[in-house]
Order: sequence, then structure tokens, then C-alpha cells
Amino acid sequence: MSSADMIRAMSEPTSQTVAGETFSPIRWTDELGLELLDQTKLPREETWLRCREPEEVAAAIYRLSVRGAPAIGVSTAYGLVVGLQSMEEGGDLRQRFDQVSELLGGTRPTAVNLRWALERGRKVFEQHAEAGRQASIDALLDWAKRVHAADIDSCRAIGAFGAELFSADDRVLTHCNAGALATGGYGTAVGVITSSWDQGRLAQVWVDETRPLLQGARLTAWELERLGIPYKLVTDSSVGALMSRGLVDRAVVGADRIAANGDTANKIGTYPLALAARAAGVPFYVAAPLSTFDLTLASGAEIPIEERGADEVLGANAGEGVAAYNPAFDVTPAELVAGWITERGVLQPPFPGD
Amino acid sequence: MSSADMIRAMSEPTSQTVAGETFSPIRWTDELGLELLDQTKLPREETWLRCREPEEVAAAIYRLSVRGAPAIGVSTAYGLVVGLQSMEEGGDLRQRFDQVSELLGGTRPTAVNLRWALERGRKVFEQHAEAGRQASIDALLDWAKRVHAADIDSCRAIGAFGAELFSADDRVLTHCNAGALATGGYGTAVGVITSSWDQGRLAQVWVDETRPLLQGARLTAWELERLGIPYKLVTDSSVGALMSRGLVDRAVVGADRIAANGDTANKIGTYPLALAARAAGVPFYVAAPLSTFDLTLASGAEIPIEERGADEVLGANAGEGVAAYNPAFDVTPAELVAGWITERGVLQPPFPGD
Repeated sequence: MSSADMIRAMSEPTSQTVAGETFSPIRWTDELGLELLDQTKLPREETWLRCREPEEVAAAIYRLSVRGAPAIGVSTAYGLVVGLQSMEEGGDLRQRFDQVSELLGGTRPTAVNLRWALERGRKVFEQHAEAGRQASIDALLDWAKRVHAADIDSCRAIGAFGAELFSADDRVLTHCNAGALATGGYGTAVGVITSSWDQGRLAQVWVDETRPLLQGARLTAWELERLGIPYKLVTDSSVGALMSRGLVDRAVVGADRIAANGDTANKIGTYPLALAARAAGVPFYVAAPLSTFDLTLASGAEIPIEERGADEVLGANAGEGVAAYNPAFDVTPAELVAGWITERGVLQPPFPGD
Repeated sequence: MSSADMIRAMSEPTSQTVAGETFSPIRWTDELGLELLDQTKLPREETWLRCREPEEVAAAIYRLSVRGAPAIGVSTAYGLVVGLQSMEEGGDLRQRFDQVSELLGGTRPTAVNLRWALERGRKVFEQHAEAGRQASIDALLDWAKRVHAADIDSCRAIGAFGAELFSADDRVLTHCNAGALATGGYGTAVGVITSSWDQGRLAQVWVDETRPLLQGARLTAWELERLGIPYKLVTDSSVGALMSRGLVDRAVVGADRIAANGDTANKIGTYPLALAARAAGVPFYVAAPLSTFDLTLASGAEIPIEERGADEVLGANAGEGVAAYNPAFDVTPAELVAGWITERGVLQPPFPGD
């Protein structure tokens, strides 16, 4: 079946949607500029990081204060604005744009939305650079706000399409955090869960911890608690037992980059989860906006996988001098995925361009 | 191929082996009686728990101060001795034995070695009960010491048979802790690793953390450090990526109970690891003494799976009021296992009786 057959009709993104209507980990105000919710401190503290320099935006992305491919894309868009706003009086506008773009581009290699935002942002900049610094800032800020609103609209559409796959008794497992916190707002996988819950098409959510940084235990649990959706926390290594014992009806996760053939890079642990789902006959879905698809890559073998510091794995419980290896993502082969839930419907490869 | 064909000749356990020659987490001295290394405190502290009452032995087993199916079996054997030694003057010997047996039997449901030790111990007791309390104690202590020494001998034999499967460049992955700490001494899966290393048939070990109680990060890492065997620590959810990226040549784990058809209960996370090994064509072995085989169970579906407290999963990082589900073991279907490494050779079902 071609993608065209599978794309279902949906209304255009509603232009009146603004970021403020939906909980978002990213906010822009004329008074304070860009603020990012520091997700490393959740669920204990809700601290907003005010970013006045592009280095602060880059550090927030690198340190995972803001994380999740769509949220990285939106933050990067605003980061370009911050970069031009904070440039020195009389500096070279084009040089500054290049510097800021390179700085932001060097933070996370796997999330394609980062590169997507930089490429789109550059086009906007090129159209306005001749008109000077303020005109460039105005155009980029207007564009960044539209990227932000469009991401929320995409998530709501993903949620609506995903909910059609669910039924009332479904116990749904998700990994890491693909919620409002990982996006402009509303979430991809958690958006599907939220939409299903609102329509009475969900019984319970299984949330795995997601070592080493516990995005499931800290962030997805925090979101589901706020939403009033029933869930239980399990260790990452419990997903096999949950599946084989018939305790899961469906699995849905987000994505950091999806290749043209459907191979999907997502948080480390997604692949063994997909294997266990396949072995148990549990449908495994990927929920992601089209901005997460990288049609320039033929397969997952070409997706760059970020390796993060050993210190994230080594905690208080490991002995001294222990060496660790910390790949942040794995690649789930397309054959294990039942469908890719996007803002244009539930797709199969070949995927349409964004 | 039948088990008989696969059983290789090996010398009888050497009667001169005593527990003291090999590092053991369990020790018995005439002065102090039973002492157990408190594994909940490793790697930070090496504290030995002196057990003068059977309740102390039971608590040590339940709280995982001593853990691992073979070590639980050995501790249970000594626990019966402690039970008779500590009984009240003039108490009913048979009633006391029953009480102690029930107390110890109620600690952990999955490890079959516990039941194995209680059944064997009862036979010894029945043969000496008529001769009175001291004769029963003497006979049970003599038997417990033999169980302990035989377990070490079994582990050394398992190590020798396992090493024959390994080659010099092998990068070997193990899960949880099936080392000296989990046995009378030397270890099962770690015994295979130790023996392979000693023979130059090993390049590196991958150790996964093993949430929620981190037996890999805390215990296996501690053992490999002492043994001078190179290793790297990874999160449990990294095993899929390690396998699919060609970074693992072989996997070997211990077992808590093995059914007649080869289905193997082991620490939660073993099953997804075995699935990832199968998908990558990496041989996955189970190393266990015959006392871990439960030929009364036709398949893994009959193995009771312990569910432990949610508090083990919920740590400082989860929000308040979060519910958790904490199965301690999963069952790996026999079809995913390349071979069961025992003290009688590398076996396939049907297995011989112990």
C-alpha cells in the first residue's frame, strides 16, 4: 500500500493555534525572550532557564535541559533569534548567523529536527539579511513562532490519528518521553496516549524508567500525573516480561530520526522493546512529525548515533574506576514497526516529503 | 542430540576442595558459625552478617544480602544448621526443623535451589533425628559443607566446559551477577568468563547495570575488578544496540530455575537480551549447575515469578505517588538458548537428573 493511500484527510493546521494554549516546555515573551523548562530538574523542581545568549540555548540542548527531537527543533529556531538579538553592536550579521548556526548544530547529532530547523532558518535569514539586523530578527522570530505552533498542531494531529488505532481496554507501553516536554507541546507518543484517553480508548499506560537519565520515570510519569492518566512504572528490562505475559496491547514511542526505509532511531532501549513486541504479537508504533523523517538517508545504518559521557551511566552505585559505554540511541529496523503515526496519517514507506 | 551424547567426561568433584580456597560470599567457622557477605552494601562496604538465628538467614535471603540461586541453596543448607543450633533447650526437634524449613522456604519463590536444599536437608535430618539434636546438627553441618564445596566444584567444571566455547577475541556480554557472589564461590556465568580469561579465550566483558538493584554495576563489576578482567558497563537497554552493531560475540548468563524443556527463568531483562542476541546471530548461553534444573516443570510457563516491592524501582528520581510493577525474573524460551553449560558439560534438553 502506498503512502498516498494511507494518508487520511485532515483539516489544515488551524492558524489560530498559539503555543500558549497547550503546555509547552518552551516559551517566548517580548519581556523575557526565550525561556526553557529545565527538564533535568523535573519532577522535583520547575525551573525556567532564561536564554539571553546562543551559548545558553546550546548548553540547554546539550545538557538535555530541553530534549526530544521536535522540542530541539523549536528551541533551535528560537536560538537563531537569540543569536542575532545578542550580537555585538556593529558586528557582521552574516558571520554571526553562521557562528550561531554552527554552535547550535554541534549540540546533538541524532535529532534531525535540529538540522531541519537550521536549514529552514537559514532560508528565512537569507530572505531578510539584506534588510538588516532588526528585519532579520523580526522575520526569524515570526518564523520560529510559526514552527512552534505548527509543531503543536502536528502533535494534535498525530494524537488524533493515533487514537483511531486504540481501543477502550488497551494497556499501552511507551519508552522515554515523547510528550509535551519533548515537543513544542502536547507530545507525539504521549499525544497519542492523551488523545486516546480523552476519547475513552485507553485503560492504562506502562512507563519504563529509561536509564540512564530516567526520562520515563521523571518526565513521562510527571506528564501523565498532570493529565490524570493511570500508569505504572517498570524498569527498562521488564518490557520483555510484560509483553510475553500478555500485559501489553500496544506500544508507541517517539523518534529522533527516521530513514527513508522506515528504520527509526530513538532513545536507547527502543529496539529491544520492539523485538519483544514482535515476539508477543503486540503492535509497535512510532509517532513523529514529518520533520523527524530524513529522506536523504536510505536506511538506519546511515543515522549518526550520539555517544554520551560515561558519567551518565556511572552513578553512586558503581565502584570507582569503572568504565562505561553510553550510546544514547538505537535503531529499530522498519520491519518491526506496525506504522508511523504522523500529522498526515498513519504511514508506511515510502514516506512523503515534509 | 540427546543429553547423554553431550555429557562429556569429567573427573568427580575433588573431595579435598574446601570452601575457603575460593572466594565465597558464605563462610562457616566453628567460632562464629554462619556469616554472609552483605551484598546490598557492595561495592562500597564489605560487611559480613553473622547469622545466629534462622530469622537472620531468612532476612538475609529476602533482602538480597545473599542472592543468586546457588548461593541461596548453600545459605539455606547452613540455615537449617543455624535453626537447630539456636532452638530452645528442651524444644521439639522435629517441630523446630519444620518451622525453620518453612521460614527459609518462604523467602524467594523462583530460585529452585532453595527448595532443592530444603528437600535434601530434610533427608539428612530424617536419617539422624532419632539420634537427637547434636547428631542432627553434626550431620546437617557436614552435609551443608559438602553442598558448599560441591557447588564450588560445579562452578569450576561449568567454567572449564564454558571456556571451550570461547575464543581469544571474544567480547562477552553478561547480565546481573552470576559470579562468586551468587554461588558457593567462583560463579557460573562469571565462572565461564574467569576460566576463559585464564585460558586467553576472552577479550572483554560487557556488564549491564541490571536495574532495579544494579547487581551488574555493583557486583559483577566488583568481581571483574578483583579478577583483573577488562569490562565496560552499559545500561540494560543498551544490549540491543551492542548486539546489532556487532560489538558482542557471545552472551552468557546464570539462571534461577530451568524447566525440563529448557525454558530458563533468570533476572528480569534476560529475555529481551536473548531476543537481541538471536536477532544478531550472537550465541546466548545459560550457565547453571544441575541443581538449578527443575525437571518437575514441563515448561517455563509453570515457573513461579517473584514480584518484589515497588520501592526497589521508585528511587529518588521518580515523583511522589508513582505506582510501579516489579517482576524480579523473566522466562527465556529454550529456542533462544544455544546451550546450557553445566558441571556435566554443555547440554541440550532432555536434561539428566541431578
